[in-house]
Amino acid sequence: MQHQAIGVFDSGVGGLTVCRELIRLLPKEQLLYLGDTARVPYGTKSPATVTQYALESAEFLCAQGIKLLVVACNTASAVALPQLRDRFNLPVIGVLEPGARAAVASGGHRIGVVGTEGTINSDSYRQALLNLAPDTAVFSAACPLFVPLAEEGWADHSVARQVAAEYLAPLLAEKIDTLVLGCTHYPLLEGAIRVAVGPGMKLVDSAAATALEVVELLERAELAAEEGTGGQRFFVTDVPTRFRRIGMGFLGAEFQSVEQVHIG
Amino acid sequence: MQHQAIGVFDSGVGGLTVCRELIRLLPKEQLLYLGDTARVPYGTKSPATVTQYALESAEFLCAQGIKLLVVACNTASAVALPQLRDRFNLPVIGVLEPGARAAVASGGHRIGVVGTEGTINSDSYRQALLNLAPDTAVFSAACPLFVPLAEEGWADHSVARQVAAEYLAPLLAEKIDTLVLGCTHYPLLEGAIRVAVGPGMKLVDSAAATALEVVELLERAELAAEEGTGGQRFFVTDVPTRFRRIGMGFLGAEFQSVEQVHIG
Repeated sequence: MQHQAIGVFDSGVGGLTVCRELIRLLPKEQLLYLGDTARVPYGTKSPATVTQYALESAEFLCAQGIKLLVVACNTASAVALPQLRDRFNLPVIGVLEPGARAAVASGGHRIGVVGTEGTINSDSYRQALLNLAPDTAVFSAACPLFVPLAEEGWADHSVARQVAAEYLAPLLAEKIDTLVLGCTHYPLLEGAIRVAVGPGMKLVDSAAATALEVVELLERAELAAEEGTGGQRFFVTDVPTRFRRIGMGFLGAEFQSVEQVHIG
Repeated sequence: MQHQAIGVFDSGVGGLTVCRELIRLLPKEQLLYLGDTARVPYGTKSPATVTQYALESAEFLCAQGIKLLVVACNTASAVALPQLRDRFNLPVIGVLEPGARAAVASGGHRIGVVGTEGTINSDSYRQALLNLAPDTAVFSAACPLFVPLAEEGWADHSVARQVAAEYLAPLLAEKIDTLVLGCTHYPLLEGAIRVAVGPGMKLVDSAAATALEVVELLERAELAAEEGTGGQRFFVTDVPTRFRRIGMGFLGAEFQSVEQVHIG
C-alpha cells in the first residue's frame, strides 16, 4: 500500500494548487491527478450531477491503484464525500473540512468564506465551522468571477482587485477576522484578495490546509512512502491543450505528461 | 410540418437571446429550447466533445418533432454543423453564417470578431467571412470573461466596461469598421462594448441575424406557421434553478415552464 499513489481529482485545473502543495510537502510520493475538463465547471451544477461526476472520477483513479483519495474540489467536497466514502474502501480527504479546521485553529471568531455558487449554496462550510466551534459567526459570499479571472491569467490585473473589493465588501462590513478561500482556484488570487481585505486579515488557504492533512493522515495510517523520488501523472477528460496552458500557473511547474482519458 | 415546432439548442442560457428574437419576429411559432446546462460551457471544450454534445442535443429535440433546428451556440455552430446536417433530415441553421453574412452585408471591410476561446480558435468566422468576401481583413479576439460577466448580471458594471476596453483594444488598433458579436451571450454586453468601440462602429449581433435567417428560411420552404398563438417549452439537462434565475435576463421575459431532461 505504501508504494501506491495518492489520487487527486478536481473538475479542472483548480486542484493543481493542492497538487503543488502535496509535491512540496511529500516529494517521495507518486501522485495521480484527474481533471474532469470535459465537464468543468462543477460549481454551477446540481448536487446530484456533481456527485455522479465525482463517483466516476474516483472510480477511474481507484482503478489505477491508489492508497488515498483527495477530492481537490470544494464543490465536490461539499456534496459528494459521504457517497465517495461509502463506495470506496480507502481514506477520502476533501478540501472543505481541512479549510474549516484551519480557520477555527487560527482562532477566528467571525469567519468569512468565499467560494463558487455551488459551494456557498450548499452551506457546507457554515455547517463544518459550526460543528467545530458552535459560537463562530459565519458569513459567506459566492464569487463567480474569481474562477474565470484566475483561468484567464488576470489574477494580478486591476480588474481582479476591483472584483475582489466588490465581492468582499459585504464580508468586511460584518467585521470578519478570518477569510477562508473556499475554492482551489483562489490561492492564485491571493494578492488581489489581500489588497481588498488589508494586512490584518487571517487568510486560510484550503488547498494548503488539505495538503497538511494528507501528510498527517499518511503518517498516522503508516501509509507514507519511505523511499522514492516521487512523480506525477496527469489525466484529463477533454483534450489537454487548455489544461496544459492554464494549469502551469496553478501547478507552478511544467507538466511531465498529460493524458486524455474517457470516464463516465 | 408547418405545425411542428422550431427546435433551438445551446449549452446554456446564451441561446435565449436567439429565442427572444424568434419570439419577437415569429409570434405564431412554437419553440422548443434545450439548454445543455449539465455540460455548459462548450466554449472551452474540444471540437470532438462539442460535436458529440451537439448531436445528443439535436437528437433530443428531433425526437420531440421539429421542422427546423437552430444551433444557437457559436461554438457548436463552428464545429458541428456538417455532422448535424448529415445526421438529421431537416434544415439546420447555425449562428455563425448569419453573423458573417450580416457583417459583409453591412459593408464591413475590416471586420473584428469576438467570441469564446472555442469559437475564435476554430477560425470559423474568418473562414466564413473570407468565403463571402475574400478581400475582407478579419481580426479576432477571444473574450473569456464576457460570458461569466453576463451570467453574473454584471453586464452594465464598470468592470464589464473595463474588460471590454481591454479585450477590444487590439481590434481597435487594427482600425476595424465592423464588430461581430460572435457569442449569443454578448448581446447583453452591448452597452459595455458600445462604450469601448464608440458610436461609429457597426455592431453585428449574431443572435438577431440568425433569427432573421430563420424567418427567411421558413418563408422560402413554406414551413411558417400560418395560425397559432405561439408558445415555448424550455428543457435543461441540470436542475432548472440557475437557468431560470439567470436566463430571464437573456430571454427578456418570465419562463412559462422549465423541465429537466436527461440526454447523452
